[in-house]
Amino acid sequence: MKKHIPEKTVARLLLYYRYLYFLLQQGTKNISSKSLADMVEIKDSQVRKDLSYFGKLGGQGAGYDVLALRDMIAKVLDIGQITNVCIIGMGGLGSALASYKGFEALGFKVAAVFDNAANKVGHRLRGHTCLDSKELSKVVAEKDLKVAILTVPGEAAQKTSIALEQARVKAILNFTPVKLSLSKNIKIRNIDLAMELKTLSFFVK
Amino acid sequence: MKKHIPEKTVARLLLYYRYLYFLLQQGTKNISSKSLADMVEIKDSQVRKDLSYFGKLGGQGAGYDVLALRDMIAKVLDIGQITNVCIIGMGGLGSALASYKGFEALGFKVAAVFDNAANKVGHRLRGHTCLDSKELSKVVAEKDLKVAILTVPGEAAQKTSIALEQARVKAILNFTPVKLSLSKNIKIRNIDLAMELKTLSFFVK
Repeated sequence: MKKHIPEKTVARLLLYYRYLYFLLQQGTKNISSKSLADMVEIKDSQVRKDLSYFGKLGGQGAGYDVLALRDMIAKVLDIGQITNVCIIGMGGLGSALASYKGFEALGFKVAAVFDNAANKVGHRLRGHTCLDSKELSKVVAEKDLKVAILTVPGEAAQKTSIALEQARVKAILNFTPVKLSLSKNIKIRNIDLAMELKTLSFFVK
Repeated sequence: MKKHIPEKTVARLLLYYRYLYFLLQQGTKNISSKSLADMVEIKDSQVRKDLSYFGKLGGQGAGYDVLALRDMIAKVLDIGQITNVCIIGMGGLGSALASYKGFEALGFKVAAVFDNAANKVGHRLRGHTCLDSKELSKVVAEKDLKVAILTVPGEAAQKTSIALEQARVKAILNFTPVKLSLSKNIKIRNIDLAMELKTLSFFVK
């Protein structure tokens, strides 16, 4: 089933998961699609459509059981499984992500960090020994790393992403502002922090 | 005009801007809506619709003038104007963002950084003297800061966001996993790095 869930739906399911988690902590046992929709700021028809992936979980007007729904989403999205990831580019952002607590909460473990600068390779950085980018293929194979976080400078982004694909990484979270040109076999998600800030600030001038 | 452009359109215009910028560097002078759509990975009908905000810029089949289009978008989105922002929470991520080069490229300047920890307040961190979060209202008013980047721990997020609203900040880029409850007067954009990674990795299991 899971491969057929669209990416945007997965993103919304994760949002629901997060809010259901908070609701449980607060002791809330039941929630309507309308309340869930309000929390996530989308239409309740969308919530009902998304949750229809799980079959009959709540009746018309009866609301959803928070615990059951959370566990169902966790199961479908493999939350609880540990996923090893690597970080390429140990500048400021890469270093911050190497010790970012938020990743643990969703089951991610930074299993390797890479750079190509002589003053970083072989040194301890945020709890990791920085590896040489030249060793990418070897380490990715050894540790079966499928997901990479790309935080190199823009100029090095395309070249590094090709090395990642050659190393058989399956997915890249791309923090560089560069549009990566790779084959369709590798999944890319772009986060451009400056553009996020710009989109936000546009409305407050 | 600008206030009527929807947020998602602004986000796409920024993407176009970024790719037009690259195209110019490569010496490309003309681009079709189809090529631009392929770069941004959306439908070309959407590109044409978005660019219709600017009136007649390209004819059917004639393509768009890259330079004219880039300048037009820059003007509409106020790219080139400097916007001062502040960062609240000088942990790993906040510190990385305080010296993040990518912000400069889109006209952002980190004008103040805050924390409430005694071992940070008053110290130089990434080129900034860390200020006490208690001084938020005073500094925001003095420096006319309208945009804040929130990188405090999740437990402190809601409380700190209320302080930001009271300090009359107009927009928050929220990196915490907490859904902030504030008035409609303050604009919020959420970036949840762990959820981005999860959305990506879901497809590669």
